[in-house]
Amino acid sequence: MTKVLAGITMSLDGYITGPNDRLGAGLGDGGERLHHWVFGGPWTYDRPGGSAIGVDKDYIEEVFASGGAWIVGRTMHDVVDGWGDDPGFGVPVFVVTHRPRETAVKGDTTFAFVTGGIADALERAQAAAAGKNVIVMGGADLLRQYLAAGVVDEFTLTIAPVLLGAGKRLFDGISRTDIRFERTAVVESPFATHLRFRMLYGE
Amino acid sequence: MTKVLAGITMSLDGYITGPNDRLGAGLGDGGERLHHWVFGGPWTYDRPGGSAIGVDKDYIEEVFASGGAWIVGRTMHDVVDGWGDDPGFGVPVFVVTHRPRETAVKGDTTFAFVTGGIADALERAQAAAAGKNVIVMGGADLLRQYLAAGVVDEFTLTIAPVLLGAGKRLFDGISRTDIRFERTAVVESPFATHLRFRMLYGE
Repeated sequence: MTKVLAGITMSLDGYITGPNDRLGAGLGDGGERLHHWVFGGPWTYDRPGGSAIGVDKDYIEEVFASGGAWIVGRTMHDVVDGWGDDPGFGVPVFVVTHRPRETAVKGDTTFAFVTGGIADALERAQAAAAGKNVIVMGGADLLRQYLAAGVVDEFTLTIAPVLLGAGKRLFDGISRTDIRFERTAVVESPFATHLRFRMLYGE
Repeated sequence: MTKVLAGITMSLDGYITGPNDRLGAGLGDGGERLHHWVFGGPWTYDRPGGSAIGVDKDYIEEVFASGGAWIVGRTMHDVVDGWGDDPGFGVPVFVVTHRPRETAVKGDTTFAFVTGGIADALERAQAAAAGKNVIVMGGADLLRQYLAAGVVDEFTLTIAPVLLGAGKRLFDGISRTDIRFERTAVVESPFATHLRFRMLYGE
Protein backbone atom coordinates (compact mmCIF):
# COMPACT_ATOMS: atom_id res chain seq x y z
CA MET A 1 0.00 0.00 0.00
CA THR A 2 1.22 3.45 -0.78
CA LYS A 3 2.45 5.33 2.25
CA VAL A 4 3.40 8.98 2.40
CA LEU A 5 6.93 9.49 3.67
CA ALA A 6 8.56 12.79 4.45
CA GLY A 7 11.90 13.79 5.79
CA ILE A 8 14.53 16.48 5.87
CA THR A 9 17.84 17.35 7.49
CA MET A 10 17.88 19.91 10.30
CA SER A 11 20.71 21.46 12.30
CA LEU A 12 20.80 21.18 16.08
CA ASP A 13 19.43 24.70 16.24
CA GLY A 14 16.51 23.86 13.98
CA TYR A 15 17.56 25.20 10.60
CA ILE A 16 17.33 23.50 7.21
CA THR A 17 19.40 26.19 5.50
CA GLY A 18 22.18 28.47 6.71
CA PRO A 19 22.31 32.27 6.90
CA ASN A 20 21.94 34.21 3.65
CA ASP A 21 20.24 31.39 1.79
CA ARG A 22 18.61 32.56 -1.41
CA LEU A 23 18.21 31.48 -4.98
CA GLY A 24 21.70 31.08 -6.39
CA ALA A 25 23.31 30.71 -2.99
CA GLY A 26 22.27 27.11 -2.36
CA LEU A 27 21.78 26.39 1.31
CA GLY A 28 23.44 29.61 2.47
CA ASP A 29 26.58 30.11 4.54
CA GLY A 30 27.76 26.80 5.90
CA GLY A 31 24.49 25.15 4.96
CA GLU A 32 26.31 22.38 3.09
CA ARG A 33 27.40 21.11 6.52
CA LEU A 34 23.85 19.79 6.92
CA HIS A 35 24.54 17.25 4.22
CA HIS A 36 27.97 15.94 5.11
CA TRP A 37 26.11 12.68 5.72
CA VAL A 38 24.96 12.67 2.09
CA PHE A 39 27.88 14.06 0.12
CA GLY A 40 30.79 13.75 2.51
CA GLY A 41 32.59 16.72 4.03
CA PRO A 42 35.93 18.50 3.75
CA TRP A 43 37.53 15.11 4.21
CA THR A 44 36.21 14.03 0.80
CA TYR A 45 36.49 17.31 -1.09
CA ASP A 46 39.59 16.07 -2.88
CA ARG A 47 37.42 13.32 -4.33
CA PRO A 48 34.65 15.06 -6.30
CA GLY A 49 31.27 13.43 -6.15
CA GLY A 50 31.54 12.36 -2.54
CA SER A 51 28.68 10.21 -1.45
CA ALA A 52 27.12 8.65 1.59
CA ILE A 53 28.71 5.67 3.27
CA GLY A 54 27.68 3.07 5.81
CA VAL A 55 24.29 3.39 7.47
CA ASP A 56 23.71 6.78 5.81
CA LYS A 57 24.07 5.12 2.42
CA ASP A 58 21.78 2.29 3.50
CA TYR A 59 19.17 4.81 4.62
CA ILE A 60 19.26 6.80 1.38
CA GLU A 61 19.11 3.68 -0.75
CA GLU A 62 16.18 2.31 1.23
CA VAL A 63 14.23 5.54 0.79
CA PHE A 64 14.93 5.76 -2.93
CA ALA A 65 14.06 2.11 -3.47
CA SER A 66 10.72 2.54 -1.67
CA GLY A 67 9.67 5.65 -3.60
CA GLY A 68 7.26 5.43 -6.52
CA ALA A 69 6.86 9.19 -6.78
CA TRP A 70 8.32 12.30 -5.14
CA ILE A 71 6.83 15.65 -4.23
CA VAL A 72 8.97 18.75 -3.85
CA GLY A 73 8.32 22.47 -3.47
CA ARG A 74 9.17 24.84 -6.29
CA THR A 75 11.71 26.77 -4.23
CA MET A 76 13.66 23.64 -3.33
CA HIS A 77 13.50 22.50 -6.94
CA ASP A 78 14.83 25.83 -8.13
CA VAL A 79 17.50 26.16 -5.42
CA VAL A 80 19.17 22.99 -6.65
CA ASP A 81 18.47 23.93 -10.28
CA GLY A 82 16.23 20.92 -10.79
CA TRP A 83 19.05 18.55 -9.86
CA GLY A 84 20.85 19.35 -13.11
CA ASP A 85 20.68 17.36 -16.31
CA ASP A 86 20.45 13.90 -14.82
CA PRO A 87 18.46 13.99 -11.57
CA GLY A 88 18.30 10.21 -11.46
CA PHE A 89 15.09 9.84 -9.48
CA GLY A 90 13.88 7.20 -11.93
CA VAL A 91 10.27 7.91 -10.96
CA PRO A 92 7.94 10.89 -11.45
CA VAL A 93 8.57 14.03 -9.41
CA PHE A 94 5.72 16.46 -8.75
CA VAL A 95 6.71 20.07 -8.12
CA VAL A 96 4.19 22.12 -6.14
CA THR A 97 4.17 25.65 -7.47
CA HIS A 98 2.07 28.74 -8.08
CA ARG A 99 3.79 29.35 -11.41
CA PRO A 100 2.75 26.99 -14.22
CA ARG A 101 5.55 25.44 -16.21
CA GLU A 102 5.84 22.76 -18.88
CA THR A 103 6.61 19.24 -17.75
CA ALA A 104 10.35 18.64 -17.94
CA VAL A 105 11.87 15.28 -18.82
CA LYS A 106 15.51 14.87 -17.78
CA GLY A 107 17.01 11.42 -18.23
CA ASP A 108 14.83 8.95 -16.35
CA THR A 109 13.05 11.65 -14.34
CA THR A 110 9.90 13.56 -15.23
CA PHE A 111 9.12 16.79 -13.39
CA ALA A 112 5.44 17.72 -13.48
CA PHE A 113 4.59 21.20 -12.19
CA VAL A 114 1.38 21.10 -10.18
CA THR A 115 -0.55 24.31 -9.53
CA GLY A 116 -3.56 22.73 -7.84
CA GLY A 117 -2.15 22.71 -4.32
CA ILE A 118 -0.82 20.01 -2.03
CA ALA A 119 -3.89 17.74 -2.17
CA ASP A 120 -3.83 17.68 -5.96
CA ALA A 121 -0.09 16.98 -6.00
CA LEU A 122 -0.55 14.15 -3.52
CA GLU A 123 -3.38 12.60 -5.52
CA ARG A 124 -1.34 12.66 -8.69
CA ALA A 125 1.74 11.29 -6.93
CA GLN A 126 -0.26 8.48 -5.37
CA ALA A 127 -1.65 7.51 -8.76
CA ALA A 128 1.84 7.58 -10.27
CA ALA A 129 3.48 5.66 -7.43
CA ALA A 130 1.83 2.40 -8.47
CA GLY A 131 1.68 0.99 -4.97
CA LYS A 132 5.10 2.22 -3.90
CA ASN A 133 5.58 5.14 -1.50
CA VAL A 134 5.10 8.83 -2.12
CA ILE A 135 8.00 10.79 -0.67
CA VAL A 136 7.68 14.45 0.28
CA MET A 137 11.16 15.89 0.12
CA GLY A 138 10.67 19.49 1.23
CA GLY A 139 11.31 22.33 1.63
CA ALA A 140 10.13 23.36 5.03
CA ASP A 141 6.97 25.09 3.91
CA LEU A 142 5.74 22.08 1.96
CA LEU A 143 6.58 19.69 4.80
CA ARG A 144 4.67 21.83 7.29
CA GLN A 145 1.65 21.90 4.99
CA TYR A 146 1.60 18.13 4.50
CA LEU A 147 2.17 17.49 8.22
CA ALA A 148 -0.61 19.92 9.15
CA ALA A 149 -2.91 18.20 6.64
CA GLY A 150 -2.39 14.97 8.56
CA VAL A 151 -1.46 12.91 5.52
CA VAL A 152 2.16 12.05 6.29
CA ASP A 153 2.44 8.45 7.52
CA GLU A 154 6.13 8.38 8.36
CA PHE A 155 8.51 11.23 9.00
CA THR A 156 12.28 11.10 9.28
CA LEU A 157 14.02 13.99 10.95
CA THR A 158 17.71 13.82 10.23
CA ILE A 159 19.70 15.87 12.70
CA ALA A 160 23.09 17.11 11.60
CA PRO A 161 25.38 17.90 14.54
CA VAL A 162 26.03 21.50 13.59
CA LEU A 163 24.84 24.95 14.60
CA LEU A 164 23.95 27.31 11.77
CA GLY A 165 22.82 30.31 13.79
CA ALA A 166 20.30 31.49 11.21
CA GLY A 167 18.48 30.33 8.11
CA LYS A 168 15.13 28.76 7.41
CA ARG A 169 13.52 27.00 10.36
CA LEU A 170 11.87 23.68 9.69
CA PHE A 171 8.92 23.98 12.00
CA ASP A 172 8.40 27.73 12.14
CA GLY A 173 4.74 28.63 12.09
CA ILE A 174 3.43 25.08 11.91
CA SER A 175 -0.29 25.41 12.33
CA ARG A 176 -0.95 22.55 14.72
CA THR A 177 0.92 20.98 17.61
CA ASP A 178 -1.35 18.00 18.25
CA ILE A 179 0.77 15.87 15.94
CA ARG A 180 2.25 12.85 17.65
CA PHE A 181 5.60 11.47 16.63
CA GLU A 182 5.92 7.81 17.52
CA ARG A 183 9.55 6.86 17.22
CA THR A 184 10.03 3.67 15.23
CA ALA A 185 13.78 3.71 14.74
CA VAL A 186 16.93 5.71 15.26
CA VAL A 187 19.75 5.35 12.77
CA GLU A 188 23.02 6.95 13.77
CA SER A 189 26.22 7.65 11.94
CA PRO A 190 29.10 9.94 12.88
CA PHE A 191 27.56 12.55 10.56
CA ALA A 192 23.88 12.51 11.40
CA THR A 193 21.16 10.96 13.48
CA HIS A 194 18.06 9.85 11.64
CA LEU A 195 15.00 9.87 13.89
CA ARG A 196 12.24 7.91 12.25
CA PHE A 197 8.66 8.41 13.36
CA ARG A 198 5.23 7.03 12.62
CA MET A 199 2.84 9.97 12.60
CA LEU A 200 -0.40 10.12 14.54
CA TYR A 201 -2.78 13.04 14.42
CA GLY A 202 -5.05 14.49 17.07
CA GLU A 203 -4.97 14.13 20.85
CA MET B 1 39.29 14.52 36.36
CA THR B 2 36.42 16.94 36.55
CA LYS B 3 34.57 17.32 33.29
CA VAL B 4 31.89 19.87 32.53
CA LEU B 5 28.67 18.25 31.36
CA ALA B 6 25.61 20.04 30.07
CA GLY B 7 22.30 18.92 28.74
CA ILE B 8 18.67 19.81 28.31
CA THR B 9 15.48 18.53 26.71
CA MET B 10 14.27 20.17 23.50
CA SER B 11 11.15 19.64 21.38
CA LEU B 12 11.43 18.69 17.72
CA ASP B 13 10.80 22.31 16.87
CA GLY B 14 13.62 23.52 19.10
CA TYR B 15 11.84 24.72 22.23
CA ILE B 16 12.74 24.01 25.85
CA THR B 17 9.47 25.50 27.15
CA GLY B 18 6.01 25.75 25.68
CA PRO B 19 3.95 28.83 24.81
CA ASN B 20 3.09 31.25 27.64
CA ASP B 21 5.89 30.08 29.89
CA ARG B 22 6.51 32.46 32.73
CA LEU B 23 7.21 32.40 36.43
CA GLY B 24 4.36 30.53 38.05
CA ALA B 25 3.35 28.76 34.84
CA GLY B 26 6.14 26.20 34.84
CA LEU B 27 7.13 25.19 31.34
CA GLY B 28 4.12 26.82 29.70
CA ASP B 29 1.28 25.26 27.72
CA GLY B 30 2.05 21.64 27.05
CA GLY B 31 5.66 22.11 28.12
CA GLU B 32 5.42 19.17 30.53
CA ARG B 33 5.33 16.94 27.45
CA LEU B 34 9.05 17.59 27.12
CA HIS B 35 9.62 15.59 30.25
CA HIS B 36 7.43 12.56 29.78
CA TRP B 37 10.73 10.66 29.68
CA VAL B 38 11.54 11.90 33.19
CA PHE B 39 8.21 11.90 35.00
CA GLY B 40 6.01 9.72 32.86
CA GLY B 41 3.01 11.00 30.94
CA PRO B 42 -0.75 10.82 31.04
CA TRP B 43 -0.37 7.06 31.28
CA THR B 44 1.15 7.45 34.76
CA TYR B 45 -0.87 10.40 36.02
CA ASP B 46 -2.99 8.07 38.15
CA ARG B 47 0.20 7.18 39.96
CA PRO B 48 1.54 10.43 41.44
CA GLY B 49 5.28 10.78 41.43
CA GLY B 50 5.80 9.09 38.11
CA SER B 51 9.42 8.54 37.29
CA ALA B 52 11.73 7.50 34.50
CA ILE B 53 11.97 3.89 33.46
CA GLY B 54 14.34 1.80 31.37
CA VAL B 55 17.16 3.51 29.53
CA ASP B 56 15.84 6.94 30.52
CA LYS B 57 16.20 5.96 34.17
CA ASP B 58 19.68 4.59 33.51
CA TYR B 59 20.67 7.83 31.83
CA ILE B 60 19.41 10.03 34.67
CA GLU B 61 21.03 7.87 37.30
CA GLU B 62 24.34 7.87 35.47
CA VAL B 63 24.32 11.67 35.23
CA PHE B 64 23.39 12.15 38.88
CA ALA B 65 26.02 9.64 40.03
CA SER B 66 28.73 11.41 38.03
CA GLY B 67 27.90 14.88 39.33
CA GLY B 68 29.93 16.49 42.11
CA ALA B 69 28.30 19.88 41.69
CA TRP B 70 25.55 21.43 39.58
CA ILE B 71 25.14 24.85 38.00
CA VAL B 72 21.73 26.28 37.19
CA GLY B 73 20.39 29.66 36.12
CA ARG B 74 18.28 31.71 38.50
CA THR B 75 15.21 31.62 36.24
CA MET B 76 15.22 27.85 35.99
CA HIS B 77 15.74 27.59 39.75
CA ASP B 78 12.81 29.91 40.39
CA VAL B 79 10.51 28.33 37.78
CA VAL B 80 10.66 25.03 39.63
CA ASP B 81 10.56 26.80 42.98
CA GLY B 82 14.01 25.55 43.95
CA TRP B 83 12.87 21.95 43.56
CA GLY B 84 10.74 22.25 46.69
CA ASP B 85 11.73 21.22 50.19
CA ASP B 86 13.79 18.17 49.34
CA PRO B 87 15.62 18.71 46.04
CA GLY B 88 17.75 15.61 46.61
CA PHE B 89 20.81 16.62 44.58
CA GLY B 90 23.05 15.49 47.42
CA VAL B 91 25.82 17.78 46.17
CA PRO B 92 26.25 21.56 46.01
CA VAL B 93 24.19 23.51 43.48
CA PHE B 94 25.42 26.89 42.26
CA VAL B 95 22.74 29.29 41.04
CA VAL B 96 23.96 31.97 38.61
CA THR B 97 22.07 35.18 39.29
CA HIS B 98 22.22 38.95 39.25
CA ARG B 99 20.23 39.17 42.49
CA PRO B 100 22.20 38.20 45.62
CA ARG B 101 20.49 35.80 47.98
CA GLU B 102 21.49 33.90 51.09
CA THR B 103 22.70 30.34 50.64
CA ALA B 104 19.81 27.93 51.11
CA VAL B 105 20.19 24.48 52.65
CA LYS B 106 17.37 22.06 51.87
CA GLY B 107 17.85 18.47 52.96
CA ASP B 108 21.09 17.23 51.48
CA THR B 109 21.32 20.06 48.95
CA THR B 110 22.97 23.44 49.34
CA PHE B 111 22.05 26.23 46.92
CA ALA B 112 24.75 28.92 46.68
CA PHE B 113 23.74 32.04 44.75
CA VAL B 114 26.65 33.29 42.64
CA THR B 115 26.68 36.85 41.33
CA GLY B 116 30.17 36.81 39.83
CA GLY B 117 29.15 35.41 36.44
CA ILE B 118 29.55 32.07 34.73
CA ALA B 119 33.32 31.78 35.13
CA ASP B 120 33.08 32.37 38.87
CA ALA B 121 30.27 29.85 39.20
CA LEU B 122 32.25 27.27 37.25
CA GLU B 123 35.34 27.81 39.36
CA ARG B 124 33.40 27.36 42.56
CA ALA B 125 31.58 24.32 41.22
CA GLN B 126 34.82 22.71 40.09
CA ALA B 127 36.32 23.22 43.55
CA ALA B 128 33.23 21.74 45.17
CA ALA B 129 32.97 18.79 42.80
CA ALA B 130 36.02 17.10 44.33
CA GLY B 131 37.07 15.38 41.13
CA LYS B 132 33.56 14.46 40.01
CA ASN B 133 31.79 16.23 37.16
CA VAL B 134 30.25 19.66 37.09
CA ILE B 135 26.85 19.57 35.45
CA VAL B 136 25.27 22.62 33.83
CA MET B 137 21.53 22.05 33.90
CA GLY B 138 20.18 25.12 32.13
CA GLY B 139 18.20 27.11 31.25
CA ALA B 140 18.86 27.99 27.69
CA ASP B 141 20.61 31.27 28.33
CA LEU B 142 23.10 29.72 30.73
CA LEU B 143 23.77 26.79 28.40
CA ARG B 144 24.42 29.13 25.50
CA GLN B 145 26.85 31.15 27.60
CA TYR B 146 28.81 28.10 28.75
CA LEU B 147 28.86 26.62 25.24
CA ALA B 148 30.04 29.91 23.75
CA ALA B 149 32.74 30.10 26.42
CA GLY B 150 34.08 26.80 25.13
CA VAL B 151 34.17 25.13 28.54
CA VAL B 152 31.56 22.40 28.11
CA ASP B 153 33.26 19.02 27.55
CA GLU B 154 30.18 16.91 26.93
CA PHE B 155 26.69 17.94 25.88
CA THR B 156 23.56 15.85 25.82
CA LEU B 157 20.67 17.07 23.74
CA THR B 158 17.55 15.16 24.65
CA ILE B 159 14.93 15.41 21.94
CA ALA B 160 11.33 14.91 22.97
CA PRO B 161 9.13 13.85 20.05
CA VAL B 162 6.66 16.72 20.37
CA LEU B 163 5.95 20.04 18.68
CA LEU B 164 5.35 22.98 21.01
CA GLY B 165 4.88 25.72 18.42
CA ALA B 166 6.29 28.46 20.64
CA GLY B 167 8.26 28.98 23.79
CA LYS B 168 11.93 29.51 24.61
CA ARG B 169 14.36 28.34 21.94
CA LEU B 170 17.45 26.54 23.12
CA PHE B 171 19.95 27.90 20.66
CA ASP B 172 18.47 31.29 19.80
CA GLY B 173 21.14 33.92 19.53
CA ILE B 174 24.06 31.66 20.29
CA SER B 175 27.10 33.81 19.66
CA ARG B 176 29.25 31.30 17.78
CA THR B 177 28.62 28.51 15.30
CA ASP B 178 32.14 27.08 15.10
CA ILE B 179 31.30 24.62 17.85
CA ARG B 180 31.68 21.01 16.77
CA PHE B 181 29.47 18.31 18.18
CA GLU B 182 31.15 14.91 17.98
CA ARG B 183 28.52 12.29 18.62
CA THR B 184 29.64 9.73 21.18
CA ALA B 185 26.38 7.92 21.84
CA VAL B 186 22.67 7.87 21.13
CA VAL B 187 20.32 6.57 23.78
CA GLU B 188 16.75 6.04 22.65
CA SER B 189 13.55 5.30 24.47
CA PRO B 190 9.96 5.56 23.29
CA PHE B 191 9.80 8.94 25.03
CA ALA B 192 13.02 10.66 24.04
CA THR B 193 16.26 10.39 22.14
CA HIS B 194 19.38 11.41 24.00
CA LEU B 195 22.10 12.60 21.63
CA ARG B 196 25.40 12.66 23.47
CA PHE B 197 28.26 14.73 22.11
CA ARG B 198 31.87 15.49 22.91
CA MET B 199 32.39 19.19 22.31
CA LEU B 200 35.18 20.64 20.21
CA TYR B 201 35.70 24.34 19.67
CA GLY B 202 37.03 26.26 16.69
CA GLU B 203 37.36 25.23 13.07
